[in-house]
Amino acid sequence: MKIRVNVMLKEGVLDPQGKAIGHAFEVLGFSNVGEVRVGKTIELEVDTADREAAAAQGEAMARELLANLVIEDFAVEVAE
Amino acid sequence: MKIRVNVMLKEGVLDPQGKAIGHAFEVLGFSNVGEVRVGKTIELEVDTADREAAAAQGEAMARELLANLVIEDFAVEVAE
Repeated sequence: MKIRVNVMLKEGVLDPQGKAIGHAFEVLGFSNVGEVRVGKTIELEVDTADREAAAAQGEAMARELLANLVIEDFAVEVAE
Repeated sequence: MKIRVNVMLKEGVLDPQGKAIGHAFEVLGFSNVGEVRVGKTIELEVDTADREAAAAQGEAMARELLANLVIEDFAVEVAE
């Protein structure tokens, strides 16, 4: 099964990369852009046929390795 | 409208960050994990009421700034 884990900074945590991108949009003439936040996406293959097991494993992997839960939130999607 | 742009390395482009994460999963005991790929997610607010205009603008922004089209692919989702 293919899993996608999306990791974003929590609300209220300063996102300098997002701020820089927002500023670049202004310079490029995209004047109607509000807040920009940047996160990361981890796509991986898990060798299991059970969707729920795949989702549970994705959550475990996010907690143990992919996300820093002090400053980041994550979401797990099972794609297929 | 909220837009999400997902930028991933193209297939065939070496992803050392993904490889490192895959190795870390093995060390942590997740032995059933196949290929791992890492990308980035950019969430942003666009001040327009038209879904199609928002999607078109998201694509323009990805082409001009967010993605390096030589090595990366992108996908635009309009969230609301």
